[in-house]
Amino acid sequence: MIDLLIEKIKKMNAPIVVGLDPMMTFIPEQIKKKAFAEHGETLAGAGEAVFAFNKAIIDHIHDLTPAVKPQIAMYEQFGTEGVKAFAKTVSYCKEKGLIVIGDIKRNDIGSSSEAYAIGHLGKVKVGANYFSPFEEDFVTVNPYLGSDGIKPFIDVAKAEKKGLFILVKTSNPSSGEFQDRLLFEGRTENSKPLYELVAKKVVEWGDDHIGQYGYSYVGAVVGATYPEQGKRLREIMPKVFILVPGYGAQGGKASALAHFFNPDGLGAIINSSRGIIAAYQEEKYAHFGAEGFAEASREAVIAMTEDIRRSVG
Amino acid sequence: MIDLLIEKIKKMNAPIVVGLDPMMTFIPEQIKKKAFAEHGETLAGAGEAVFAFNKAIIDHIHDLTPAVKPQIAMYEQFGTEGVKAFAKTVSYCKEKGLIVIGDIKRNDIGSSSEAYAIGHLGKVKVGANYFSPFEEDFVTVNPYLGSDGIKPFIDVAKAEKKGLFILVKTSNPSSGEFQDRLLFEGRTENSKPLYELVAKKVVEWGDDHIGQYGYSYVGAVVGATYPEQGKRLREIMPKVFILVPGYGAQGGKASALAHFFNPDGLGAIINSSRGIIAAYQEEKYAHFGAEGFAEASREAVIAMTEDIRRSVG
Repeated sequence: MIDLLIEKIKKMNAPIVVGLDPMMTFIPEQIKKKAFAEHGETLAGAGEAVFAFNKAIIDHIHDLTPAVKPQIAMYEQFGTEGVKAFAKTVSYCKEKGLIVIGDIKRNDIGSSSEAYAIGHLGKVKVGANYFSPFEEDFVTVNPYLGSDGIKPFIDVAKAEKKGLFILVKTSNPSSGEFQDRLLFEGRTENSKPLYELVAKKVVEWGDDHIGQYGYSYVGAVVGATYPEQGKRLREIMPKVFILVPGYGAQGGKASALAHFFNPDGLGAIINSSRGIIAAYQEEKYAHFGAEGFAEASREAVIAMTEDIRRSVG
Repeated sequence: MIDLLIEKIKKMNAPIVVGLDPMMTFIPEQIKKKAFAEHGETLAGAGEAVFAFNKAIIDHIHDLTPAVKPQIAMYEQFGTEGVKAFAKTVSYCKEKGLIVIGDIKRNDIGSSSEAYAIGHLGKVKVGANYFSPFEEDFVTVNPYLGSDGIKPFIDVAKAEKKGLFILVKTSNPSSGEFQDRLLFEGRTENSKPLYELVAKKVVEWGDDHIGQYGYSYVGAVVGATYPEQGKRLREIMPKVFILVPGYGAQGGKASALAHFFNPDGLGAIINSSRGIIAAYQEEKYAHFGAEGFAEASREAVIAMTEDIRRSVG
């Protein structure tokens, strides 16, 4: 799957992923009105509004982006109906030929970790039948529990030819509270931050899982908001594909993104969520109006891609 | 909610929680047969089997344990139908007066973290209506992203009078890969493991949220498999309630559990999952047979409670 992702990035000349994080405040009134008219102001109504919103955006951008990244929290908040909208969104994206990165940040140990991996990337057995409940191509995973939490995801990803992105250095302001802490290595000059140790483990976990373009399907997440750390992490993890959130709305600048790429022009995929899916709410795209929200998203994808090409090129 | 949990623990003289982690291999054939007869060997059939299994166990143990801890991974592996079974399980447990700790290990930042908190502990707004999709009383949370990931959970827990347990030192063999790493503090003799720093943050996060019995509703998770670390963490976090997994099937011994409690006899709640819900598969309880699985679970809860009372008392 990492090979397919790279092929799509090359073909489109677009190392980007669109985050499908549909907050209710992003969804135009006409979409909500229609969904509520059918299902009432209920959880089912919310799920339908979320899916209809996503569908319109996907229809308008699927030829411009290799991948999408639905953030499951935004769906799970509506309970079972929200999770149903998540599953429908993933299926629809795959029908449209998009690679789907499930931003689920799951983590557990042993059989529980395996259950997450099976549900999201693999097949679950019921009696004599097998089902693929969520069908993502990649998922994000939290590393705090160590190898026991990661290995089941790698095993399932290997069997299913899928992949994962492990949180290394996250984009948020407080990510340094634990991730930046220097580890004691006997001598002052040897001390390194925790995220570097996590990065080294990501390299180790992924080393037997390299695809035909020289990249592992065990990837990493490093925030666009930390370009200096990104530069260092790019060096430590030369064969690791990096998913980079935090561009745009979170303050990450395109000029700092070059650090996340290798000299081959590959190695990173930049995410934008709000900047794309809620583009119509920005002054720059206000002329599209709420009715033209999906067209605004399309324009925003084009602008983002150009911005990144300029900076990386 | 931490006060209610403590009252129930005192009343029952049982600082225990039963983990509802229903692997398909735990569920007796007669339960699966019935569920599959109604729904086929489908994800809906799996969800029904899981719920029916849980329901029988809950009916047999709800008067013996203050709390249950469903592990959402075991439900989520069956997709939307599994998540529906999770929600039904939580609702049924609450009808029976049980406190529900959702073992979800969620983590994210900002609005995504808030979405998880709202969905699991709070109320989500749809149009003019509010809904509580999952209704747990506590959830487990992963701390790797720092305060940005934790604060939204604390805010919702405060508003809803609920609580959380933050992963500090997990029970699995590889938990030390990151959690035990010594942090550089300028001098060798000052270096402390990462889990102690996380523990100090848990104290800080919870300090304004202390209930009437002197415990915070911002709790911690520390594995029974690490009693020495448990002793140290008990000292560092005197007002923090500790959820202790790893007793029984994972190898944690009751004799080592005393360390997790304060002199007041409170401060910890010990979890057992497989040892209770799959008790009928153990030689000791084999005489119950598959038909008597729920009675076997009841006996196992009684035995566990006595074992812990002896060791702690």
